[in-house]
Amino acid sequence: MPVGYTPPTPDSLLPVAGVALGAAAAKIKSWERNDVLLVVCDPGTVAAGVFTQNRFAAAPVQVCREHLAVQARSGSALRALVVNAGNANAGTGAAGLADARAECVAVARLLDCAPEEVLPYSTGVIMEPLPVGRIIDGLPAARAAARADGWFDAAKAIMTTDTVPKGASRRVTIDGVAVTVTGIAKGAGMIHPDMATMLAFMATDAPIAADVLAPLVAEIAAVSFNGATIDGDTSTNDSFVLAATGRAAMAPITSPGDSRLRTLRKAIEACAVELAQAIVRDGEGATKFIAIRVEGGTCVDECRRVAFGIAHSPLVKTAFFASDPNLGRIVCAIGNAAAPDTDVTRVSFWLDDVLVVDRGGRSPAYREEDGQRVMKQDEITIRVDLGRGSAAATVWTCDFSHEYVSINADYRS
Amino acid sequence: MPVGYTPPTPDSLLPVAGVALGAAAAKIKSWERNDVLLVVCDPGTVAAGVFTQNRFAAAPVQVCREHLAVQARSGSALRALVVNAGNANAGTGAAGLADARAECVAVARLLDCAPEEVLPYSTGVIMEPLPVGRIIDGLPAARAAARADGWFDAAKAIMTTDTVPKGASRRVTIDGVAVTVTGIAKGAGMIHPDMATMLAFMATDAPIAADVLAPLVAEIAAVSFNGATIDGDTSTNDSFVLAATGRAAMAPITSPGDSRLRTLRKAIEACAVELAQAIVRDGEGATKFIAIRVEGGTCVDECRRVAFGIAHSPLVKTAFFASDPNLGRIVCAIGNAAAPDTDVTRVSFWLDDVLVVDRGGRSPAYREEDGQRVMKQDEITIRVDLGRGSAAATVWTCDFSHEYVSINADYRS
Repeated sequence: MPVGYTPPTPDSLLPVAGVALGAAAAKIKSWERNDVLLVVCDPGTVAAGVFTQNRFAAAPVQVCREHLAVQARSGSALRALVVNAGNANAGTGAAGLADARAECVAVARLLDCAPEEVLPYSTGVIMEPLPVGRIIDGLPAARAAARADGWFDAAKAIMTTDTVPKGASRRVTIDGVAVTVTGIAKGAGMIHPDMATMLAFMATDAPIAADVLAPLVAEIAAVSFNGATIDGDTSTNDSFVLAATGRAAMAPITSPGDSRLRTLRKAIEACAVELAQAIVRDGEGATKFIAIRVEGGTCVDECRRVAFGIAHSPLVKTAFFASDPNLGRIVCAIGNAAAPDTDVTRVSFWLDDVLVVDRGGRSPAYREEDGQRVMKQDEITIRVDLGRGSAAATVWTCDFSHEYVSINADYRS
Repeated sequence: MPVGYTPPTPDSLLPVAGVALGAAAAKIKSWERNDVLLVVCDPGTVAAGVFTQNRFAAAPVQVCREHLAVQARSGSALRALVVNAGNANAGTGAAGLADARAECVAVARLLDCAPEEVLPYSTGVIMEPLPVGRIIDGLPAARAAARADGWFDAAKAIMTTDTVPKGASRRVTIDGVAVTVTGIAKGAGMIHPDMATMLAFMATDAPIAADVLAPLVAEIAAVSFNGATIDGDTSTNDSFVLAATGRAAMAPITSPGDSRLRTLRKAIEACAVELAQAIVRDGEGATKFIAIRVEGGTCVDECRRVAFGIAHSPLVKTAFFASDPNLGRIVCAIGNAAAPDTDVTRVSFWLDDVLVVDRGGRSPAYREEDGQRVMKQDEITIRVDLGRGSAAATVWTCDFSHEYVSINADYRS
């Protein structure tokens, strides 16, 4: 069960005008559940996305990049997303690419739009041929099921080893007009977004111009999904797409300096952070949620490197699982990830409010029982001060448990 | 129990003329075993070492670097090593440095040499104050126990979570003179040498000049200890020291081009590789030994990066534990570690003799049962061809088991 995360209810995920979602059971694996999702957007919807930096980017990621580029170039719309769980369509070579394109063609035929107006997503096992025929056969049922209040069922349909569906909504008022932001995501393992954690799709009815949307998506990803890590494995399929339907009754936002963007951005970022944290809280086998804040760096990248160095150390993660204040492992992880010219006699770190290392050595005031008290909590903050500058970054991770090994030793069986 | 490793017997570790080793019980932790080791070298011994790149290098590592520099500058000898298990003396700040120096002073007094002729080693828990008094109190007993055939007992005294002692010997004949190389090492967890895996100490009675020895040690480390990884955590204490006592009856080797060095180097390298592999075979919770060979890179560093990318992926490691040919996880790991300009349509990989990915996609000839057959073995070779150049590198790792989590969740208790 997730650490400190209450999953959404059907009512808590607010419809976004111009978006309908429908799921169907295509039997991608031998299971009884919905595993294909069709998201239909009204004409005029603009979208932007960020995707995995993995060199073996999955076929659907490659097609998403192509299609978003066509949409940006030609000013055409995002009309649909087609998502399947159970198979990642990654490491599948030319055949996998052809399958991803075939899905888009099938959706385009169904909705009477261009294939380039469709984005494909896949998540699941890597290097298995995609059962594209079964996905295409499931599309009419998914379309028939599509409803504006389909977000909750959609969040369920894209789950793999997630234990709960993940979704978030915000409603804000901008110049007297109610604007909605809703998103769903799935995660659970192979999580070290760069970009984003697995699949996340968000939509808003606010009218945002394409050239404002694209940098906004990258900025939001940097402070949300790209700060989440479970096991340090950037998946082949990571994708985060934000769609703006423009259905809210307000003048379009066409400049990044538009003051209305500030309120909207806050709502989008809040949803994205909630989803990113939900992914970590529901990490495979997670029993603890750990926020790692690194301050005093010369740049954000340096702070992120140190934070991820801590977050990815199996020894740190198993110590958290055991609630064991074996904090020398954090010292070791900092030492591995810090820049070569780091002066460790200026480095300090805290476990919540407890000062553990004071400028390079164990703090004289540190008492084991204080460390033990914090380590027993479900939620812990590690704060590191590098003593070199004023940059900072935060990442979120979870512990490493027997359950993680069990889940990943048995995943395909 | 280690995978495919038969630990040494007392008789299999050959004495090296000019080296005597003695262990004693100093009760560094509440255990009944030897935990302090004194290695005494004859006057005239030269030594060189490589050490961790971790920025939080342990106090003994800092002192070793200082003392080896003094020895190189002044032409003085290596007279002794003092090693303790159970406490790493790392993350201990100025007090830890003072403790490491105090050990050297105590040994120097005992042996009537200069403190700079002594190298301190520590291994164990990080960030606990070193019980330096107990170590110093144990030195006379260790000295009294010192014998030329003390290598096996020495290998036992430096163990932490190792399940077996690790040692290797070679005897070669150079110009009609028998020359011996013997080494011991300890490993088990926090293993991703850079340099070397935890503690390794090797000695030869061959006479090697200091300026030939230093580059030789670095070259040997690169193809042995630095190719071993268990969990990707470069420890604060990694140290590998090679001592040459010069007691064999032959003219000194004073040039790297000396043809006698070729035979000797082979013997040293064979011992080092045997020790490095032993560390991996006895990795915490290891059930499989995995060699990862990456070929076709533009440089060795690129090949090592990809090999370690595979070796460090928790998802790859858990799949090996499960004997599950979930080989898409290897695809994903390659994709994360490969250079950004890698053309994945030129990348192939094999599991032993089984071609899995053929130039970017699943090989049409690949059958799950072939992958399954190899995955069930205790020893597996992954071979990757990057298709970009002619460089290659090999690293060794083990799988990630429930036992690893148990060991590291309970280490301090």
